[in-house]
Amino acid sequence: METFFSFLERRVDDCTSLLCIGLDPHSADLEYPTATAAYEFSVNLVRQTAPYAAAFKPNAAFFEQFGADGWTALKEVIHAIQDESERMGSMIPVILDAKRGDISSTADAYARAAFDALGAHCITLSPYLGRDSIDPFIKDQEKGVFLLCKTSNPGSSDLQDIPLEGGELLYERVARLARTWNTRNNIGLVVGATQPEALARVRALAPEMWFLSPGVGAQGGELELAMLAGLRKDHRGMLLPVSRAISRSPNPARAAADLRDQIIHIQSGMEH
Amino acid sequence: METFFSFLERRVDDCTSLLCIGLDPHSADLEYPTATAAYEFSVNLVRQTAPYAAAFKPNAAFFEQFGADGWTALKEVIHAIQDESERMGSMIPVILDAKRGDISSTADAYARAAFDALGAHCITLSPYLGRDSIDPFIKDQEKGVFLLCKTSNPGSSDLQDIPLEGGELLYERVARLARTWNTRNNIGLVVGATQPEALARVRALAPEMWFLSPGVGAQGGELELAMLAGLRKDHRGMLLPVSRAISRSPNPARAAADLRDQIIHIQSGMEH
Repeated sequence: METFFSFLERRVDDCTSLLCIGLDPHSADLEYPTATAAYEFSVNLVRQTAPYAAAFKPNAAFFEQFGADGWTALKEVIHAIQDESERMGSMIPVILDAKRGDISSTADAYARAAFDALGAHCITLSPYLGRDSIDPFIKDQEKGVFLLCKTSNPGSSDLQDIPLEGGELLYERVARLARTWNTRNNIGLVVGATQPEALARVRALAPEMWFLSPGVGAQGGELELAMLAGLRKDHRGMLLPVSRAISRSPNPARAAADLRDQIIHIQSGMEH
Repeated sequence: METFFSFLERRVDDCTSLLCIGLDPHSADLEYPTATAAYEFSVNLVRQTAPYAAAFKPNAAFFEQFGADGWTALKEVIHAIQDESERMGSMIPVILDAKRGDISSTADAYARAAFDALGAHCITLSPYLGRDSIDPFIKDQEKGVFLLCKTSNPGSSDLQDIPLEGGELLYERVARLARTWNTRNNIGLVVGATQPEALARVRALAPEMWFLSPGVGAQGGELELAMLAGLRKDHRGMLLPVSRAISRSPNPARAAADLRDQIIHIQSGMEH
């Protein structure tokens, strides 16, 4: 039976890649700050990097800043990814980076917005409201979620690193809870690539779950540390989102291909 | 110097009300599930209840479910609130219930979406990513945020009630952190009206902060318990959002007036 992660793994095999291309049209990267420019920026990146993309991850914020026109642009970008997938004969999953989280009837409306109105396959969610805020997004096993666990920003320590009664840290509890909620193989965890120790701790708690691990720069060293700490035993189980290191490169296709090759190189080194 | 909460308090005084009218166009409440119907539902509610509204709280999810058209509708609803405010000669704050939360450069784009593209005065945010995910929303002291602390849903206990090392509960830590971050008088807390004990605990930790306390039904008893536990010493400091109990009433204007009067009655009973 197809689940979100069996879909993702098929694509990972098709392109031999763990790279997730972030589509973040920052105003600073656009010639003009308009929804049209955000669309063109994103679609250009999609066309150049699709052969190396295990997934695309548009961030809702950079489209919402342009209001309704931004939402139209976001929907069209997701369409363009589907067109590009069909041309290549291999469907590329779209992870909407939206970090939503609301009570159940409202979560239901957000799920419709992401999966039906926009056509995404997966969404990032905050765990703070608990299980019933996740349920509407995972009832269809072909749709997936990545739950925020340990994020890559400096402020992540404010809550996520708080020690709980018994000694566990909050993000470790989130990982354990998410694992018990993952009965349909469609919940993954956001664990930043900037913190190899956290990656290793979460990997120990959730040996089989997929991670979405942002924070990889152009530095091969950090990438290798993160992969050694976070990969599953099958050398998969970890999507590595990269945005500016590819989009700001003079040749995004080449930058994506190089990163994909670095990842394969590190994976193959682990086999010995 | 004007801050978000001095603006809110002026409106609270102008209308002698702590009522916050929720604008939640659930598909089930619409004749047709369209953005136009969501707009008409919301604007009808705005026109009927404005005299009793300390604030309006549109929930982004119920507009996003209609995609770009929903965003246009949401923007027009916020415009209609401004028009109604001008007609009455008293500005009514608009709290965008969006529960966003992302790393700093992304949070900046969400702040532009809420405050510039949509024209809201305040937004609800998740605390899970920590301080740097809040900063872009509070740098302008005339804009405000309500940070999720203890929510009214059943799943709120999954994370928010976890005991920390030292015995404090997670939502209590969030309240303490938020208080230290509130240097510009523009951060409030979401504390559900369904849990008077949590309201009392958070009130003890944050004696001067504003709460947004959803979960009040048509039952006067619960309302009184919540207000006794959550009001500040000045008998304010608590916004009471109500959605369906007003929107599904045969006479929403009357339902809002009655609730406003119940609130005033409970406040006046506290003065003795």
